[in-house]
Formats: sequence, structure tokens, C-alpha cells
Amino acid sequence: MSTALQVFVDGESCSESWTQDRGLQFGDGLFETMQVRGGNVRFESLHRARLTLGCSRLAITADHAGIWKQVAEQARVQGQALFKLQLTRGGATARGYAPTGSERTRVILSVFPPPSRAEIPAEIHVVPLDNVLGENPQLAGLKHCNRLEQVLARASLQGKEAFEGMMSSSSGRLISGTMSNVFLELDGGLVTPEVDRCGIAGVLRAVVLREARVAGIAVQVADISWSALDRCTSMALSNARIGLLPVNRVAGRPLAINAQLRALSARIETLEQ
Amino acid sequence: MSTALQVFVDGESCSESWTQDRGLQFGDGLFETMQVRGGNVRFESLHRARLTLGCSRLAITADHAGIWKQVAEQARVQGQALFKLQLTRGGATARGYAPTGSERTRVILSVFPPPSRAEIPAEIHVVPLDNVLGENPQLAGLKHCNRLEQVLARASLQGKEAFEGMMSSSSGRLISGTMSNVFLELDGGLVTPEVDRCGIAGVLRAVVLREARVAGIAVQVADISWSALDRCTSMALSNARIGLLPVNRVAGRPLAINAQLRALSARIETLEQ
Repeated sequence: MSTALQVFVDGESCSESWTQDRGLQFGDGLFETMQVRGGNVRFESLHRARLTLGCSRLAITADHAGIWKQVAEQARVQGQALFKLQLTRGGATARGYAPTGSERTRVILSVFPPPSRAEIPAEIHVVPLDNVLGENPQLAGLKHCNRLEQVLARASLQGKEAFEGMMSSSSGRLISGTMSNVFLELDGGLVTPEVDRCGIAGVLRAVVLREARVAGIAVQVADISWSALDRCTSMALSNARIGLLPVNRVAGRPLAINAQLRALSARIETLEQ
Repeated sequence: MSTALQVFVDGESCSESWTQDRGLQFGDGLFETMQVRGGNVRFESLHRARLTLGCSRLAITADHAGIWKQVAEQARVQGQALFKLQLTRGGATARGYAPTGSERTRVILSVFPPPSRAEIPAEIHVVPLDNVLGENPQLAGLKHCNRLEQVLARASLQGKEAFEGMMSSSSGRLISGTMSNVFLELDGGLVTPEVDRCGIAGVLRAVVLREARVAGIAVQVADISWSALDRCTSMALSNARIGLLPVNRVAGRPLAINAQLRALSARIETLEQ
């Protein structure tokens, strides 16, 4: 075992274990951003399923029952909130990238104010971004903590007067927004991009697909070319904070509000699970 | 400003700022792994140049003069060591991916025991891995803290009795090892892969290229197909810990030791800068 002999943080000697957390060192962890409403985590089972899948893919062991018990208790205490639940592989037990298997998973639950309608502009503008998403099927879909691509993409949105920016895969497909999944009306049908090579399999995206099935609305999951941004007639964004949000303009071009997406949005707003 | 109202770490309330560090949340940071020998950081100016470039690409501001003064002082104190210098963008000043520009960069210097020849096996075996590297030109070359691809690749090496594993880009090019750059003898000439779409521009890689120029040895930087692993006649790995290390076998196939790479390796071992 070769851990650090000594650590200095901003020039001061520091013996705290967080400095060697693999989450901090390598982004070696996962997170869930969840809306808490009426003392419950909305779509809890879907968040739990994605976190469990992520832990399995990254070989991070966790007491899932205990974690979700704590989350549920805290949701009851808070009532209305936004929760960020982060799991890291924990403190490094050896130097270097390889996990040893003897790390102790760290659970960080952060409580934020509940999402407010006031954070969402009346007109939703979306712009295309040059920032790309690297393709890695092993990591695709997961909400892991390697998020520099999103950080750089959000930074490049600054000054652009847009609510969201669209990102492509390195091979030129339309994938998602910087913090949301995307649904398009294209050639008269509804589609959302595959997220099997890059992108995040959003919980709200799963809810939209589920509720569309329930309502008999066809939504295809497909590879979508970047040029769909020029051709789509409607668009909506989804994430746990904004729900399913219709878009008014893409790259300045006005869009129609698709009646089926609007109906799904209203339906989803009423759902707890 | 919307920071966390409350934070729980492993179920316990925690008010410490590290829980909201963007390095921990998103891998939003950079690092350098450096050998300290005779009280000095080997190849300090090259480490410094790469860190400065990374800060510029990620828009992380830092007092570089102050940081390197501290590193040099600590190098003198330690004499022989391995240093990991990490810079994160610092504590989140708002929720979400976007940096606000008002973060305060955090500097973490970890001191490890000096690299020991005993950590390096007498016979160096390298195997090909299925793990790919996603392509993102904005991040390529940088030693940033989004390293899950390397973590998973190192994990998949376990049980394989190999010192290092080779990784391809998502588009099928040979890029690097999980923790090292690679040099190959191919069709009678020396080559190393481009790292402009993925991979890390290693400091030792830069030293090898520099010393090859000085010695009049031609080393091409090129796009190299994955099948080069079947065709190469010699191979060497490079990083700050191992220097330039000749490989004995790739995928079980014995390799020759290239005389020029061996000469470069010996020459580099004597260098401090």
C-alpha cells in the first residue's frame, strides 16, 4: 500500500482523508440529481436503478439499501428540495489509477433549494455548440463524475443568451444538451438520441419514454445526425430539475410547440414516480 | 449563488468546503505526477508548461509562480520523492456544471515515496485492452482529472500478469498505455502516436522526442493503427515514474530491444531537466 506520506492543501499541511479521495483525484464516482417534493424523492426507483447500474459498471460497492433509507429520511425532513447524491470509490488505498478493491465508498448527500419556475426563462432558446462528447460505450449512459466536457460546454454558453446548448458526439451525431436530454419532432415523428456511445441516460428521459408508451405516443430512440437541428420542427429538453420543457427557438429559428410533447410535459409534472 | 444548504457525508452532517469542490464533483481540475531527485523536480519546466497550458484550456486561474515556489521548497525538503500536484477549480460557487469565474483554485500537493526500481518487473509485458479512449480535441493532451477511462482500463488489467495495457481511441487508433505513452519501432522507423484527439501529452514523451532530436534519431509523431501492435518489432513505454522503459513482450509476442530506444532511455535517466 503506497498512500501519501504528506499532503499540503494551499500550502498548509493537511492530514484529512478527503485529499486522497478517488472522486477528487480521477472523478471516480457517480451522482444523481433528484427533485424532492412533498417529502419524497421523485422517480426514486429510476434514480436508484441508474445508480445501481453505474456502481455495477464501475465496480463500486455500496450499501444501496442503507443509502436510499438515508435519502428517504432526509427527503421527509426537507419536504421540498433538490438533492445531489454522490458516491465516490472513496479514499485511495494505493497510488495510481488501479482500484485495489479495498476502498471504502463515500456517500455525499447535498441539499439544495427546490427547483423554482423562476429559474426557467419564459422563452427557451437553444444553440448548437462546438463542444463534442467523446465516445466510450463502457461509460455511456452513466451519470459519472467525469464531467469536464459538460463544464467546458456550459462555459462556452456564457454570453450566448441561451438556456441550453446542444452537443454532438465526436463522430458527429446529435446527443444531448449540456445538462439535459433532448426530444425532437423530425419528419413528423418524435425521436430522442441513443446514449449508448456517449451522453447520459437521464431519469426524466426514461420517464418521458415510459409515459409516451403508456399514452400510445410513438417516440423512437435512434442515431440522429447533427443536421437534425436544422430540420426539426419541435424540440423539448428533459432533466430532473426542469421536467420536460418545450423549446421555443433553436439557433434563432422559431419552433412549433408539439402537442404530444406538451401533453407529456403536463402529465409528467403531476407524477411522483 | 446557489450552494448547498446542508451536506451529509456518510450520513453525518458536514460543513467542510471540500464536499463541494468541483474537482470532486466533476473532475474539474488538472494534475502533474513528478519525480523529485536530489532535492529538485525532474523536468520541472515541462511539467510547469503542461499545467499552464491545461489551466489556460480549462480557464483555471492560478498563482503559478507561487505554486512552483512551494513545490521547489518542498522538493528541497524531501530530497527524493514522487510528487502529485493537483489543481482543482475549487469550491462550487453555484449549483451545476457552469463555472462562475469566482471559484478559488485549490492546490493539493501529495508526497509519495520515490519511485523504486523494485516496482518494475525484470520482464515488461504489455497486453492490448478493449477499453477505449473517447475523442475530444478540447481535452486531448491534458493531464486533467477525468480519468475514469484509465481507472477502468487499469481494473481490466488485474489478473492479466502484464505491466501495462494498450488502449485505442474510439475510432480505432493506437494511442497509449493506461499510465504511459508508447514508442514503437515500425517498418524500421520509430514512431509515437499523436495525442491531439485523446491521450495525454506526457512530459517524458516530450523529453524522449527532445532528446531524440538532439541525438539525431528520427521519431515520427503520427496516427498509428491498432494493428501496429501486431507488426511492431520493438516498443518502449514512458512516464515520469518509469522513464523510458523497453518492452519485452506484447500480447505474448517477444520483441527486440531497439538500440536507439535503449540509448535514449539511458541518456534520459541521467537528465534532471
